[in-house]
Amino acid sequence: MRILITGAAGMIGRKLAEQLAQIGRLGDQAISVLTLTDVVPPVVPAGFAGLLELDTADLATPDEATRLIAGRPDVIFHTAGIVSGEAESDFNKGYRVNLDGSRLLLAAIRQEGQAALYRPRLVFTSSIAVFGAPFPDTIDDDFLTAPLTSYGTQKAMVELLLSDYTRRGFVDGVGLRLPTICVRPGIPNKAASGFFSSIIREPLAAREAVLPVSGDVRAWHASPRAAIGFLLHAATLDAAMLGARRNMNMPGLSVTVDEQIAALRRVAGDGAVQSIRREFDPTIAKMVDGWPQAFDAARALALGFRADSSFDEIIQNHIDDEMSGSIAKVAEAT
Amino acid sequence: MRILITGAAGMIGRKLAEQLAQIGRLGDQAISVLTLTDVVPPVVPAGFAGLLELDTADLATPDEATRLIAGRPDVIFHTAGIVSGEAESDFNKGYRVNLDGSRLLLAAIRQEGQAALYRPRLVFTSSIAVFGAPFPDTIDDDFLTAPLTSYGTQKAMVELLLSDYTRRGFVDGVGLRLPTICVRPGIPNKAASGFFSSIIREPLAAREAVLPVSGDVRAWHASPRAAIGFLLHAATLDAAMLGARRNMNMPGLSVTVDEQIAALRRVAGDGAVQSIRREFDPTIAKMVDGWPQAFDAARALALGFRADSSFDEIIQNHIDDEMSGSIAKVAEAT
Repeated sequence: MRILITGAAGMIGRKLAEQLAQIGRLGDQAISVLTLTDVVPPVVPAGFAGLLELDTADLATPDEATRLIAGRPDVIFHTAGIVSGEAESDFNKGYRVNLDGSRLLLAAIRQEGQAALYRPRLVFTSSIAVFGAPFPDTIDDDFLTAPLTSYGTQKAMVELLLSDYTRRGFVDGVGLRLPTICVRPGIPNKAASGFFSSIIREPLAAREAVLPVSGDVRAWHASPRAAIGFLLHAATLDAAMLGARRNMNMPGLSVTVDEQIAALRRVAGDGAVQSIRREFDPTIAKMVDGWPQAFDAARALALGFRADSSFDEIIQNHIDDEMSGSIAKVAEAT
Repeated sequence: MRILITGAAGMIGRKLAEQLAQIGRLGDQAISVLTLTDVVPPVVPAGFAGLLELDTADLATPDEATRLIAGRPDVIFHTAGIVSGEAESDFNKGYRVNLDGSRLLLAAIRQEGQAALYRPRLVFTSSIAVFGAPFPDTIDDDFLTAPLTSYGTQKAMVELLLSDYTRRGFVDGVGLRLPTICVRPGIPNKAASGFFSSIIREPLAAREAVLPVSGDVRAWHASPRAAIGFLLHAATLDAAMLGARRNMNMPGLSVTVDEQIAALRRVAGDGAVQSIRREFDPTIAKMVDGWPQAFDAARALALGFRADSSFDEIIQNHIDDEMSGSIAKVAEAT
């Protein structure tokens, strides 16, 4: 089985590549070729027994997608894109990368299938940013996509393309609306949602974190580990179970900032919590106010997608996956 | 005030141009320039006192939109597009005309505004085809857009662009999801919904009509006259009343085919009804089965959009507007 990952240098793409390289299979099939592409060179994942192809490409440049699809990957994980903050600050770049890049990828798949049958599973990372206020406390599977960011608009447009290309038989698409990913490892990115991760990640590393919103702000979270689980599950789902609606809200945890902090205290102690400095930022608070807080992800749950079981588990996953389990000492050092 | 109509040779565009030419004003402002454009030469509307510009352009050709927008129209009615049947049979043409043409128009407006402030009202004719089964008996303003046609996909994508361009301040957009337009005048087009009109129009003209579905099929209708009313109302609505959600379900009448026929009998007598020949077509019946049947168009009603009051009125409007009121003789002749 051949697998292509776009955005392979991004956080999700990199973790997915690492996991696929280690397990060497997807469902019941061995992975023969793993192709990683991004606009910057992807990192080599450890332990892959098959053929690893590292590629650097801008998908929004004509013919790049055609070249990548010529290898006829059986499964494509399309995670490439720029984040919400950048899509908002650079209007043209957002549409070029997030919309046109995805459209060229779909067009290349369709083109490849015109000569001889080709209909790969395409797993697309969409986002709960396709929703915009006002919405009910809990968003269900039938709620309209009315985004309030250019990023969310681009994701919603690609979702529509994905469904139509699938309906026409050109691709076998599944779009996953990922929750806010928490705890994001590494350094802060341009997303306004960054503080949800930094108030956990930074204290665990004995660094100060700034909390720009009040403690009762509620959001919809999934760990990187849960997100990778969604992607792998989507890649092997029976298409017959999906029907015409190919884009789904993913399960997650609806927790407040105060609940996040309480979990941090349980896992890492008071010392860690004391590294959080409250500094209200009205701009961020206003943005966050327009974001979804909770979902009834009934459809995804029925299809077997599984969220983290608690925010304590999310923190513990971060410690295990990113800090080699070494939390206790670090937290005590604060 | 300058007005531009795209798709001005189409049914909606032509009727809109005729009405604007006759009344010579929009809201409380006189129309100084009326520009009509389409891929085929638009018909000259009667009685316009201002400057009439007739234009032939393919909006999906780069620079055509730029040329049209250089005149800085204050209001743009964007009705251009190919219909559902053609967008389904010619995949590339559908995306090129319905999506890329609209996107180039929006880009041209944004570009025009970069030199000096320019933020025209853009009224876009979307469609209830943005919805796809399964849906509740009555669709409300918060229901998701999950189209089951390429046409509906393209309309939903342009809606998203329209909202985002509006949110960013590049245009002042309003998207109207038109019901099935009934009674469509003229000859049948490539839309699978054509029979809803032909079972009224043809008998009134003493011609046979074929009914391919059962009498209990329910659909959401508006007359051409009501549709033009929606467009004119959308052009003058106070933007402050609209908020971030710029696309709206239009009001209409939810009637069954049997109710349509009963209205035809009341208006034109038994002779007209006898011109309807029932010939079941499983393909059309299956398509129609996936179409919306009724809406709770609460938001549009609150904003002052008004539907026809009865299907009898829809038929009478057709007789008045398209047959110079001469129904009785024609119907008696059958």
